[in-house]
Amino acid sequence: MATAGRDLLLLRAYRGEPVERVPVWFMRQAGRCLPEYRQVRTRWSLLEICRTPALAAEVTLQPVRRLGVDGAILFSDIVVPLAASGIDLEIVPEVGPVISEPIRGERDLRRLRDFEPGRDAPYIGEAVRLAITELDVPLIGFAGGPFTLASYLIEGGPSKTHARTRAMMHSEPLLWRTLLERLADIAAASLRAQVTAGARAVQVFDSWAGALDPDSYRRHVLPATRRLFDSLADLGTPRVHFAVGTGELLELMAAAGSDVIGVDWHVTLDSARRRLGALPVQGNLDPAACLAPWPVLREQVDAVLNRGGGAGHVFNLGHGVLPETPPDTLKRVVEHVREHEGATRTPEPVGA
Amino acid sequence: MATAGRDLLLLRAYRGEPVERVPVWFMRQAGRCLPEYRQVRTRWSLLEICRTPALAAEVTLQPVRRLGVDGAILFSDIVVPLAASGIDLEIVPEVGPVISEPIRGERDLRRLRDFEPGRDAPYIGEAVRLAITELDVPLIGFAGGPFTLASYLIEGGPSKTHARTRAMMHSEPLLWRTLLERLADIAAASLRAQVTAGARAVQVFDSWAGALDPDSYRRHVLPATRRLFDSLADLGTPRVHFAVGTGELLELMAAAGSDVIGVDWHVTLDSARRRLGALPVQGNLDPAACLAPWPVLREQVDAVLNRGGGAGHVFNLGHGVLPETPPDTLKRVVEHVREHEGATRTPEPVGA
Repeated sequence: MATAGRDLLLLRAYRGEPVERVPVWFMRQAGRCLPEYRQVRTRWSLLEICRTPALAAEVTLQPVRRLGVDGAILFSDIVVPLAASGIDLEIVPEVGPVISEPIRGERDLRRLRDFEPGRDAPYIGEAVRLAITELDVPLIGFAGGPFTLASYLIEGGPSKTHARTRAMMHSEPLLWRTLLERLADIAAASLRAQVTAGARAVQVFDSWAGALDPDSYRRHVLPATRRLFDSLADLGTPRVHFAVGTGELLELMAAAGSDVIGVDWHVTLDSARRRLGALPVQGNLDPAACLAPWPVLREQVDAVLNRGGGAGHVFNLGHGVLPETPPDTLKRVVEHVREHEGATRTPEPVGA
Repeated sequence: MATAGRDLLLLRAYRGEPVERVPVWFMRQAGRCLPEYRQVRTRWSLLEICRTPALAAEVTLQPVRRLGVDGAILFSDIVVPLAASGIDLEIVPEVGPVISEPIRGERDLRRLRDFEPGRDAPYIGEAVRLAITELDVPLIGFAGGPFTLASYLIEGGPSKTHARTRAMMHSEPLLWRTLLERLADIAAASLRAQVTAGARAVQVFDSWAGALDPDSYRRHVLPATRRLFDSLADLGTPRVHFAVGTGELLELMAAAGSDVIGVDWHVTLDSARRRLGALPVQGNLDPAACLAPWPVLREQVDAVLNRGGGAGHVFNLGHGVLPETPPDTLKRVVEHVREHEGATRTPEPVGA
């Protein structure tokens, strides 16, 4: 299976270069949708998998073997570097990360130590090194974005409204800024370690940043996110920036300096491209479409491909794979994307 | 306090007529943010309040007395007409509505009986009649929109992903269409009963419709929503349409035929106005801004007022009041909106 072409396909698309076909992978492709992952989970907890290189590498590889996707993404959880930086947390099944002592004031910041991956989380780089020995496609490094990490730390767990987080953002802008800069540095350190270990692209998941209005995002999140991407610029590795509910934020996300924008399923991809100019895009099939009958799903896959316009497009979902998704459906999507004609055509100029 | 002017202010703004100042009320202004509501809840459950006219009227009036808002909204829950149509459900504190037997197939539709408010839920109209005897501002009727009601019925409760709902939408379009039409008719019947009893405007909360991409919304939700608004047209009562996460759906929502669009906080109001043309708008202060210090909050209130542009704007939050909001903060917002100059100025033409 290993060919030089396939090895480079994803990276060329991330760089906006012409490709012979649109590459495809799925956010959360490693995880609950796969029976082989659920098998691993019967014996080990999520954090145990993240902290055991052989397990993390195995789970990272599972979807590549089964689905034939054009990229792997390191299996991890966005809170792993937080735990490694001194935050006491556990991941509760059906709930998510729960932080025993949330960050509520300046004093609490002391509990967030400096993060040196080699010292504090050597298993991250080791998992990358193990995974790439078996991979014939690029491995994508994985980290959480500053707003999302801050929300977990401040709320103490997942939140529908992010009310405490946004209250702190508005009420204590200096504390907020300090926290976000440190979280950006933690994410950057983790991604740099992954690239050093062999990751050939990186993706920042600032999943909940779409909770914000554009003014708040510009003022309170964009500077830290820009700091994160700037600090990785010297690596020359494609940097992908993804969040959900970002129709009003796409231009600001672009200003944060990533090389690729991950677009969620709410925004049609042609419309996203108009807002983003020449920046390559990744996305954006509705994850729920994978629960539809094949003719309906195929139609939606084609719509994404047609709107993606070929060059500078990496096919993906608009958010993570839903746990109830049949793996065979994902495989069928991969095969269909591969057969799609049009990736080689010169992209039409996109207006403003 | 009662003056003809104040009585009509909200309705004139909903009709896009010139007003001497921008009217203001808050979604979920009656509820957990008010101590007098929490007092009522120590003795009665949410459904008991909704089904007891004296209690529903009392809770409806509480925020008008305390905050001096320019409109009341009937206190209810969007599942009340579903329960009155034969669906066995309860509202679980900290969770939300839980449906004992979710709708999963055509057979389940039989459990959703025809809804005649006078027979099945006389307490709705009675609560309106009781409330308006004490009101010097208009009462707004309240109902859930078809997608959101369908999601509760299909998921069996609140859902982050609406995965089952969207799966049914894609997989069983005829069943889906039938269900949505019946839910639209139930909502319309409830709103008509409220108007007959004295409500002078109505608002449809299709809170979760923003989960959909534009194609799916257009194909699978818009027709039922249009049916709902069309069926109320003869009443001549202003009809407001609100949902969350709708930046990409605003034009489609406008096509559904309401008189006013409620805009969530993600979209700046001037941008929403450009997309909506001459249609009046309601919104859209970030509810979390009410947890910020007053100078920050005031700045955000002013930004909403300035972007709202005066005529054809009703000030509101961009979603419901957060339970942790101090009532005095809401009162201060009301007073500040009242002092705002500019509502009388001729609105500038809005481009496409």
